[in-house]
Amino acid sequence: MTINEIIRKKRDGAALTADELQRLIGGYVQGEVPDYQMSAFLMAVYFRGMTPEETVEFTRLMLHSGDVVDLSAVPGVKVDKHSTGGVGDKISLPLAPVVAACGVPVPMISGRGLGHTGGTLDKLESIPGFRTDLSIEEYKRVIAELGLVLIGQTKEIAPADKKMYALRDVTSTVECIPLIAGSIMSKKLAEGIDALVLDVKTGRGAFMSTEERSRALAEALVSIGTRFGKETVGFITRMDEPLGYAIGNWNEVVESAECLQGRDVPDVMELTVVLGGAMVWLGRKAGSLEEGMERCRQAVKDGSAYDRFLRLVRRQYGDPSYIVDPSKYRRSRHTETVSAPADGYIGSIDSLELGFTGIVLGAGRTRVDEAVEPAAGILLRKKCGDPVRKGETVAEFSTDRTAAVDEAKRRIERAVTVTPARPEPQKLILSVVDKNGVRPY
Amino acid sequence: MTINEIIRKKRDGAALTADELQRLIGGYVQGEVPDYQMSAFLMAVYFRGMTPEETVEFTRLMLHSGDVVDLSAVPGVKVDKHSTGGVGDKISLPLAPVVAACGVPVPMISGRGLGHTGGTLDKLESIPGFRTDLSIEEYKRVIAELGLVLIGQTKEIAPADKKMYALRDVTSTVECIPLIAGSIMSKKLAEGIDALVLDVKTGRGAFMSTEERSRALAEALVSIGTRFGKETVGFITRMDEPLGYAIGNWNEVVESAECLQGRDVPDVMELTVVLGGAMVWLGRKAGSLEEGMERCRQAVKDGSAYDRFLRLVRRQYGDPSYIVDPSKYRRSRHTETVSAPADGYIGSIDSLELGFTGIVLGAGRTRVDEAVEPAAGILLRKKCGDPVRKGETVAEFSTDRTAAVDEAKRRIERAVTVTPARPEPQKLILSVVDKNGVRPY
Repeated sequence: MTINEIIRKKRDGAALTADELQRLIGGYVQGEVPDYQMSAFLMAVYFRGMTPEETVEFTRLMLHSGDVVDLSAVPGVKVDKHSTGGVGDKISLPLAPVVAACGVPVPMISGRGLGHTGGTLDKLESIPGFRTDLSIEEYKRVIAELGLVLIGQTKEIAPADKKMYALRDVTSTVECIPLIAGSIMSKKLAEGIDALVLDVKTGRGAFMSTEERSRALAEALVSIGTRFGKETVGFITRMDEPLGYAIGNWNEVVESAECLQGRDVPDVMELTVVLGGAMVWLGRKAGSLEEGMERCRQAVKDGSAYDRFLRLVRRQYGDPSYIVDPSKYRRSRHTETVSAPADGYIGSIDSLELGFTGIVLGAGRTRVDEAVEPAAGILLRKKCGDPVRKGETVAEFSTDRTAAVDEAKRRIERAVTVTPARPEPQKLILSVVDKNGVRPY
Repeated sequence: MTINEIIRKKRDGAALTADELQRLIGGYVQGEVPDYQMSAFLMAVYFRGMTPEETVEFTRLMLHSGDVVDLSAVPGVKVDKHSTGGVGDKISLPLAPVVAACGVPVPMISGRGLGHTGGTLDKLESIPGFRTDLSIEEYKRVIAELGLVLIGQTKEIAPADKKMYALRDVTSTVECIPLIAGSIMSKKLAEGIDALVLDVKTGRGAFMSTEERSRALAEALVSIGTRFGKETVGFITRMDEPLGYAIGNWNEVVESAECLQGRDVPDVMELTVVLGGAMVWLGRKAGSLEEGMERCRQAVKDGSAYDRFLRLVRRQYGDPSYIVDPSKYRRSRHTETVSAPADGYIGSIDSLELGFTGIVLGAGRTRVDEAVEPAAGILLRKKCGDPVRKGETVAEFSTDRTAAVDEAKRRIERAVTVTPARPEPQKLILSVVDKNGVRPY
């Protein structure tokens, strides 16, 4: 069967065999199948989908295009978390030290921000000196020493995914569940994990805006993890308003450090404790999710998680004095406030709009090669449901870009609405997905 | 809007504007849009289709990627015929001289055979010396002198189509009506025609095997022709058994020449007279289709069409002595016969299977750069509905390829079935499509 015939088979709606996928994906990785055949195939997959078996095989081929890190020398059940990305989603920062402090090793390979969502690497790199470009050898040393490590994707990890993603990005074939699932899982499975917790966002500021699509993605991810023998649990969580108060790289580091020192930012802490509880449970350091959650709360309370965070910063060449005293940090040239237009309650905070505003301010990027401004961003003063008075500050924002100030102000004013009646509180965590299916949380 | 966004718009089912198509197709022709974006777009079109307006715009961009031949110096209404291709479809060979003999100039730019169907160029080139690679200047001189000319596509004619077709061929995006229609019509409109007659095949040996798809293609073609101000009439004709008795390049030249000398091969002559009648009518040399048909019959009867054919052969550097005395022609090394397995009637002759057998024998090709063997092919001795006796010869075949003999024999035996009862005769011409719609013939 020629490559053309394999494309036709998918185009006509049939499932490909492992051998056919190998010829196509394997050939692509080797440079034998050209981009123009792969992009036609990807578009056919967009319309025809993939069976669970095809998705697993696709993931396997991407995974084995590079190295799979062997962490068997590190004792314990290694557990990572992956989030599909949201606005203000700094959860990895408090989460990894919390889980590590509970005795579960967390090997985390993260990405950069793109579009309206931020990325853990950009946040960590806003800490002066912090390096995320460790070699795989150093990655293994750091997790063995500290029980956690946070780095960026190296060229050894799933190189096929990198090549494929670049092609999908310019051929409108990104928004396709089996391709997204294969891309995520091939990278996660390469880290050396034993189990995985997923945070699949849904809503206005998420890549999947409907709960149905988010559930389908969560099921695809859990199914792949399970098929690779890694216990995988997913949570579908709301991404309508931003998580926490801080948006922007350094802002989010500061908020995370404060949470680790006991500040109660309700949505950030709820998500940290639930995802962390699941990780501790899957990591065999708790007998149930609830016990895992309790252990996480304890690790924050007794300071061990914060201590672990400072050690991580130091170990990855960062300067912890900025964490201890954030007032040392260089401020943006401009800081402005946005105030409430009327008395009432905060009715909604449009995270998608604030994500795009972050790009305008310099906190995010639209192209992978753009630089970000670490201090730029937004600090909310209110969250949904909070009462406000007319003229009261609802948010402030910072940027070095003089030309961005007016646009950012207009956009934030539009993104934060005030209503006369207090809106109904919304659940943050909607459902849990594991190998047995989906159930409400 | 970026190219990526234009692809997404089509992927999501929206119609593109003329400006968006210009950026995409125009950019592709200029080499600014890479193959991998075009192939993703083509696959999206495969699933989403194109509106009539998009198809016209697509055709216009392909057409104007090259030269449009100006035949205004040649008096009369210039009319061409295009067939979507079939097995044994030599109709252009008798048709063009018949129509030219009726006083209607026929400027014909044809293609080569590919897959199971033959191509007019390969047939003409089987005549010793015949050249189809005339320049556009010589093309214009020949039609002015003789009232007909038959050449191959030059590099000046719709170069975008050539580039696009090569890409479609390796990305499984060939079988898509707007793309097929744009490809055909951009080439035909570049020839310098004033009107066009289409022969859209349907059935087992056609590219469109269902009548519904053939009708949709005919409607798309007629709609484009009409929008470009060229009167266009299409016929949907059956391609279940091969046309005539001869399959293979030189075989078909001989059968065509015999028909022009008065031999009655019913299906070949019926189609020649109907398509020719429509051309003579559109060419304003008859007041109705029926009158045009009568003029065509007359041009065969009085020998003027055969005379025109011999003059064409001579003018395009061919040796007419082989037409006059085909026994001079070099024979294939092997000639074998296939006989009927039982008494009865010929129930069906599978043209698709015989088309593929032609490739095995060397009469056709699977890649554009393969050479063909002029004398190789099949000569049927029977057509559907003919009575046969067990052991009587139903077909003979010729080839230089010793290794092909057994396979060809087996395939022809399978392709020609004998039934106890005489099958119902089938209509050859099913319906007529013009700007007012489809009606039964």
